[in-house]
Amino acid sequence: MKRIKIKTIFEEKDCYSEKEVTICGWVRSNRSQAQFGFLNVNDGSCFSSIQVVYSDEMSNFASVSKFRVGMSLLVKGIVKLTPSMKQALELHATHIEMLGDCPENYPIQPKRHTREFLREVAHLRPRTNLFSAVFRVRSVAAYAIHTYFQKNGYVYVHTPLITCADCEGSDQMFKITTLDLKNLPLNQDGSIDYNKDLFGKQAFITGSGQLQGETFAMAFSDIYTFGPTFRTENSNTKTHANEFWMIEPEMAFCDLEGLMDIEEEMLKFVVKFVMDNCPEEIAFFDAFVEKGLKDRINNLLNSKFVRITHHDVIDILKKAKINWEFTPSYDDDIAKEHEKYITEYFNGPVFITNWPKDIKAYYMKVNPDNKTVAAVDLVVPGAGELMGGSQREENLDKLIERMDTLHVDKEGIDWYLDTRRYGGCVHSGFGMGFERLIMYLTGIENIRDVIPFPRTPKNCEF
Amino acid sequence: MKRIKIKTIFEEKDCYSEKEVTICGWVRSNRSQAQFGFLNVNDGSCFSSIQVVYSDEMSNFASVSKFRVGMSLLVKGIVKLTPSMKQALELHATHIEMLGDCPENYPIQPKRHTREFLREVAHLRPRTNLFSAVFRVRSVAAYAIHTYFQKNGYVYVHTPLITCADCEGSDQMFKITTLDLKNLPLNQDGSIDYNKDLFGKQAFITGSGQLQGETFAMAFSDIYTFGPTFRTENSNTKTHANEFWMIEPEMAFCDLEGLMDIEEEMLKFVVKFVMDNCPEEIAFFDAFVEKGLKDRINNLLNSKFVRITHHDVIDILKKAKINWEFTPSYDDDIAKEHEKYITEYFNGPVFITNWPKDIKAYYMKVNPDNKTVAAVDLVVPGAGELMGGSQREENLDKLIERMDTLHVDKEGIDWYLDTRRYGGCVHSGFGMGFERLIMYLTGIENIRDVIPFPRTPKNCEF
Repeated sequence: MKRIKIKTIFEEKDCYSEKEVTICGWVRSNRSQAQFGFLNVNDGSCFSSIQVVYSDEMSNFASVSKFRVGMSLLVKGIVKLTPSMKQALELHATHIEMLGDCPENYPIQPKRHTREFLREVAHLRPRTNLFSAVFRVRSVAAYAIHTYFQKNGYVYVHTPLITCADCEGSDQMFKITTLDLKNLPLNQDGSIDYNKDLFGKQAFITGSGQLQGETFAMAFSDIYTFGPTFRTENSNTKTHANEFWMIEPEMAFCDLEGLMDIEEEMLKFVVKFVMDNCPEEIAFFDAFVEKGLKDRINNLLNSKFVRITHHDVIDILKKAKINWEFTPSYDDDIAKEHEKYITEYFNGPVFITNWPKDIKAYYMKVNPDNKTVAAVDLVVPGAGELMGGSQREENLDKLIERMDTLHVDKEGIDWYLDTRRYGGCVHSGFGMGFERLIMYLTGIENIRDVIPFPRTPKNCEF
Repeated sequence: MKRIKIKTIFEEKDCYSEKEVTICGWVRSNRSQAQFGFLNVNDGSCFSSIQVVYSDEMSNFASVSKFRVGMSLLVKGIVKLTPSMKQALELHATHIEMLGDCPENYPIQPKRHTREFLREVAHLRPRTNLFSAVFRVRSVAAYAIHTYFQKNGYVYVHTPLITCADCEGSDQMFKITTLDLKNLPLNQDGSIDYNKDLFGKQAFITGSGQLQGETFAMAFSDIYTFGPTFRTENSNTKTHANEFWMIEPEMAFCDLEGLMDIEEEMLKFVVKFVMDNCPEEIAFFDAFVEKGLKDRINNLLNSKFVRITHHDVIDILKKAKINWEFTPSYDDDIAKEHEKYITEYFNGPVFITNWPKDIKAYYMKVNPDNKTVAAVDLVVPGAGELMGGSQREENLDKLIERMDTLHVDKEGIDWYLDTRRYGGCVHSGFGMGFERLIMYLTGIENIRDVIPFPRTPKNCEF
């Protein structure tokens, strides 16, 4: 008999009522009494476990009574609807069989474990309610992102991770090599002979696919990337990891206003998709991780995102009767405390536009004031910056001028400049850190708890 | 007025008939005559370009007549259905505006370019018919894969790429570091002091997420990965790249037969999804890349995949009256020539099962004969091996015995062994190289032509 997923039984409970089914899963708890007992069995197909009722009519009642948390089981039984009880249904077991044993020292016991402890057993933590919910939401959110872009005619582009262009500044990228580090081949002048390396030159792992993405936007109009990204930052904060996933859409024939329209529509689509598909998980986060999470998310869905310039944000911050740790400045970035204030001020997500050009990247379009660029950051209540994007400088001469001013190596990325030589156009793009989104959706405050196996300084286990 | 995608106009042509629309795109060709002319404009939203008819009633007729291939345009016009002609509709222009110029020396001209040349301008090649089709199919196929697994309740897991466990053999992995290679810190014994590296030990970029995937399958039952993968192989063949994308599903409570059921269902779903969503592209490949491609693909959809043991395959090969370059052997891998013969012999896809254990990995389940393992390769006509998988050894003692025999370092992956200590179960998984699938779907024979920016030995441009 084929196993049925527990999710399917819950979803189609009227079909399965009074029918015999076979499930497989892991014991979450076992409460045994003299003549009967209750096993909670979870197969990870949904947040809920199924309650299995067993009785001493079963020949192996004595051993089932002693089944331990963590064991894997096969259970045959009759589905009984229990509309008057907390759970919608029960499984009245006719056959229970242990598939895999689990010793008493199993680290995941039905009690509250600290998240710090669970990070040490990252390979086992998806067996807890919290991480089962987090990683199911992560999966559904990833699919929501693909679905949004595919339904809207974007082409998904796998931009390369290995790069030999160090335009990002090689200090921020991991070096990769196949050379023997203990015995590096040297040129006569003592420098490393990268001719002997696999690619014939020094190679890195990149932190962005934007430039390659722009070249594809010049063929497909609308493209997106979604892949892993690497930063060498030696920073041990709650929001930094050295390996994370990022989405980078790029749209031809799209200006700053159009960019904000897309960001808002995409975010609302993804958030709604997750709420529709993970109601149990969202309810769990609302109850046990962040009280009010559901209201916060609903508020985002129902609000029209504010659009305001960086200049006007600074005005508001300066007028506020607050003793800022960082003094707001028209020429500077805004600090976390400012982001928090401004999202509370508007009680919703805020697009902050037209940033001082001196603190932004070379490829952003310089505004007619020659002081600001057509960049936009989206800041949201509770999570701060969620997306960063800009209209790109489509004028070749102006782009080169900015590259020269900022000492960006043009030679290595001459191909990128071709996007401005051959049928260039107004275009825009943004980047969204995927983990930032998951933290926003779950209320989880530490990035280490939304990545299956996080990589941070001094931490590369599993 | 908002631009409309050309795909939308084709798909909803009856709605748009006689209506004015605005499109943006790039000139593919321009045939101008005395009083009128025809521009083919493509915006990458679909394979087809739209035919724009312009006449000397437009004030800028003279300059439009000279518009060059590659320029980006904005066109306003009235949609006219032309059911009697080759194209379904035309756009009768009321306004044509150049957005971005394109010089005469634009490398992508409306003529046949060699694929070798186009690899040198990989950033421009998606502007050709061939690569427009290839990369649209790549995108749709990726979405098909996500859709199959998500609809079937799999959890998408982002397994880490950075690893410090060298269980795969560090020779086959890229080393990554933040250390200054020209000035490596050394221990007193002369070895490299990896304590000073970002992770505090030597790190690599991994070639598989299977082991981490297995740990998540022990919580969610069914999981899949889909991400970039790296191999250091210094091999310049048509089927090898140093960076490629791979899908690795892993299913708990699933044996070898169940694994083959899933592989077959998944492949048929993905192939059908691409045929349904990319009919123009498939027709193009059938006409210009591989004659008979459509029949080959339809044949796969309609066939029941053969299941046969490695032993029986060798029997067939030995009986064949062929002068093999590689002699078929019961103890050995099968060669490309054998794969080709066997798919032709059965005229369809073939699952080859129960391989000699000595040529397979330590984690595969040893069969009762103690000579073979419960592994399966799927070989398909025209593309050879498309997927490789196995039932995993779920018995801890037997797994450790195999690891010891094959000198696999147990210490670094003790966490992996926990999957057999705590509620282990029969489980299976497979890997599919995504590029292999795209080559199968497009008829393209060189992996460099299905990856946006391929990385191969001595080649890391863009």
